[in-house]
Amino acid sequence: MEKLKEILEKIEKMDGEFFKKAIARQDILTKPQGSFGRLETLSAQVAAIQRREKPSVEKKAVFTFAGDHGVVYDEGINSAPKEVTAQMAVNFTHGGAGVNVLARHAGAEVVVVDVGIICDYDAPQVINKKIARGTASMTKERAMSREMAIESLIAGIEVVEERIHSTGLDLMGVGEMGIGNTVPSSAIFSVLTGKAPEEVTGPGAGIEPEILKKKIEVVQRAVELHKPDKNDALEVLSCVGGLEIGAMAGAILAGSAYRIPVVIDGFISTAAALIALTLAPDCRDSLIFSHHSAETGHNHALNFAYEKPLLDLDMRLGEGTGSALAMTLVEASVKILNEMTTFEEAAVFMVERK
Amino acid sequence: MEKLKEILEKIEKMDGEFFKKAIARQDILTKPQGSFGRLETLSAQVAAIQRREKPSVEKKAVFTFAGDHGVVYDEGINSAPKEVTAQMAVNFTHGGAGVNVLARHAGAEVVVVDVGIICDYDAPQVINKKIARGTASMTKERAMSREMAIESLIAGIEVVEERIHSTGLDLMGVGEMGIGNTVPSSAIFSVLTGKAPEEVTGPGAGIEPEILKKKIEVVQRAVELHKPDKNDALEVLSCVGGLEIGAMAGAILAGSAYRIPVVIDGFISTAAALIALTLAPDCRDSLIFSHHSAETGHNHALNFAYEKPLLDLDMRLGEGTGSALAMTLVEASVKILNEMTTFEEAAVFMVERK
Repeated sequence: MEKLKEILEKIEKMDGEFFKKAIARQDILTKPQGSFGRLETLSAQVAAIQRREKPSVEKKAVFTFAGDHGVVYDEGINSAPKEVTAQMAVNFTHGGAGVNVLARHAGAEVVVVDVGIICDYDAPQVINKKIARGTASMTKERAMSREMAIESLIAGIEVVEERIHSTGLDLMGVGEMGIGNTVPSSAIFSVLTGKAPEEVTGPGAGIEPEILKKKIEVVQRAVELHKPDKNDALEVLSCVGGLEIGAMAGAILAGSAYRIPVVIDGFISTAAALIALTLAPDCRDSLIFSHHSAETGHNHALNFAYEKPLLDLDMRLGEGTGSALAMTLVEASVKILNEMTTFEEAAVFMVERK
Repeated sequence: MEKLKEILEKIEKMDGEFFKKAIARQDILTKPQGSFGRLETLSAQVAAIQRREKPSVEKKAVFTFAGDHGVVYDEGINSAPKEVTAQMAVNFTHGGAGVNVLARHAGAEVVVVDVGIICDYDAPQVINKKIARGTASMTKERAMSREMAIESLIAGIEVVEERIHSTGLDLMGVGEMGIGNTVPSSAIFSVLTGKAPEEVTGPGAGIEPEILKKKIEVVQRAVELHKPDKNDALEVLSCVGGLEIGAMAGAILAGSAYRIPVVIDGFISTAAALIALTLAPDCRDSLIFSHHSAETGHNHALNFAYEKPLLDLDMRLGEGTGSALAMTLVEASVKILNEMTTFEEAAVFMVERK
């Protein structure tokens, strides 16, 4: 709890002066003013988070947190067998999963963290921060105790701090793996945005229409059983959350505290972002929403964060794939700010003309 | 004309069998089916254009064609002095322009081609395919003769062919530089889509509201003077087009003929794409529209091509910047197809779990 308090106290809004300087520089680059659109405000945001006139995005990592969810097995609404979370976590360490391919493309490393995988597996590269073997069934009891919710946040904070100390970190993304983790995400969205469960619950990785109907009903029951106070993010996380969602929220808070831009992945990562925003509204400035997920209700969650994401490609994979893909856009925006010639510099060779 | 005919005869639709194979492969990769959304159909399109099960996007180039437009000086609606087209072409050879930065980011080379720059300049790296020193004023006469329109197409074709022979080419983008070239683009859109000039004419690089009013009126007068047959693309290009627009259209046709995916930039490049599509409707399958430009009326032009572009970031710079940025997404999609592990391959280590 001390660690969480320390991180929350460090979180500040971005520095508007650096934002203005970045815009002012882009106004004198060899292009019509404002013509790079959102790429200009994006690099200005990165500069203002990092407090650097020439921001850096050299050291990049995607943190992929894995955990399981008791409720989906208890209620029989899982889209895949419970072994799959562990199997995919192992897959991530072999380099052939979606997030690996896109992170390589973006020049980012994938950091895989177990905070709540239910099954055993053998993969020493997975960072072990396991808090429990899955959450409890939220339709019967709290998904986790308040203490475990705090532990999950701290696990995320620690992993980011360890990365900062070991290799350094300029730009980070969050992502997740957990069979059924759209269920706690939908429950979190329903509580925090006030939308009805059916407005924020979709088919996830893919389930039959009748299972979707049951899934909506499960979200409804969980929310009604606990009625968590929407202003108490720890309570929301504890009652209807997930361990990997808590860890992502912690990682988001740590990124913000250490002035590292944080790229949010899709549906489930946005649930973590909303938990983080409820705990520390000022972390808002540190967030870059990567893409609009194809999952039902992501728009409501994004509206709650007043956010239009960078990409809208009907993706719905998770893992951090959206974060990794959007990192290539963030890096492009920073290169524009750092590498483009000003009109004054260009004049040197412009006068060379005959 | 022989060359143009030869290229037009080579153009075919993509091969649907390769498209299906690429989708089938992606259905067995370690992710929920279809969960990469448009990235899956994008790589399938590249595979189907190239007729390769594992497409390649290794050798990339952005072709940036430069030309000037008599009408904007004649009518006094230019947003910048006439020297700027030449100055920016030179800027492109120094590596500090927007297209240079984004092409480097995408691993693409920028090929700068002069097909109609009005001023003199000194930059041997600019490929000289100059057809005229700018077009004639389209409110008084044809922008160019039909012969020049054909020459501009052939210039674009030749540059692509030269690149294929010198270094090889797996993925290409088109872009442009030409002060005032939103004017011929708007005129082309008005003729081809049937939209009124005010629906497809915007502020371009930035002009005052009263100049915009005059610009719309100039487009109107040009279209009414010539009333070109919208089914005769050479006539449209000749009456209300531009040399760099013709060259881009030629490059697009050549890309399609040689089975190279062609990434279309923004507003002006889309005008070239519509000319190419009118000449050879089957080239449609070879095109990847990079982004939705902030310029008024781009939506109408995109609707005409039945296209939703990959990006929507309020960009309006041109040069090929959108093409270059979207290339990073195309490459990402191809890496997913080529590098991800199938469930069967993953099973090898999945059974390793304890």
